Amino acid sequence: MTETACHKKEIMAIHDTMDVLGGKWKISIISTMCYYNHRRFSDILTNLNGISNKQLSKELKELEQNKLIKRTVLDTQPISVQYNLTEYGWSLQNLIHDLAEWGIKHRQVIIAGE
Amino acid sequence: MTETACHKKEIMAIHDTMDVLGGKWKISIISTMCYYNHRRFSDILTNLNGISNKQLSKELKELEQNKLIKRTVLDTQPISVQYNLTEYGWSLQNLIHDLAEWGIKHRQVIIAGE
Repeated sequence: MTETACHKKEIMAIHDTMDVLGGKWKISIISTMCYYNHRRFSDILTNLNGISNKQLSKELKELEQNKLIKRTVLDTQPISVQYNLTEYGWSLQNLIHDLAEWGIKHRQVIIAGE
Repeated sequence: MTETACHKKEIMAIHDTMDVLGGKWKISIISTMCYYNHRRFSDILTNLNGISNKQLSKELKELEQNKLIKRTVLDTQPISVQYNLTEYGWSLQNLIHDLAEWGIKHRQVIIAGE
């Protein structure tokens, strides 16, 4: 087995992960459900600065197609829609915590370097 | 403290992380250096399917600006350039392993669902 072949599986797997979760918003959206369990559309808009209605709808639809989140229509007045992670979506929990931890350290590094 | 305020720091940190590492290629590029220690430009092109010369140059420059990788010019014939992770870049190692692990499971889920 060549050196390149050794880790090809892992490198491809990382690329697959980023295909599903990459982009500016997906991981952030998942993290809101990870931290708060369930979220309405307007909650997510509040949690994430700068995302538009249209963008959020698009991202939620893609996450639902990838079976990472579940959309539930609630019988409220007016009707509201709630999102939560599927069991599969919850498999991202460790990753979410690692990303948060790294981001917090990264901010300290940036501030220290300014 | 409101419910929203509780996890605002973590959610912002995740967004920060994705700002630095998001996009189609950055994490994959970092992972090649994480798995193989040091890489030449042409090694990375071989490791990653589909990235162009121009795109790779751009991504490497941004990773260097963010102090995650180090560029070393080697006194070879012809001169070659080698990249490796900085100490700061190595702080992503756990994250890289988590991403690979999740990607491998994700592929199994996708194959099982087909």
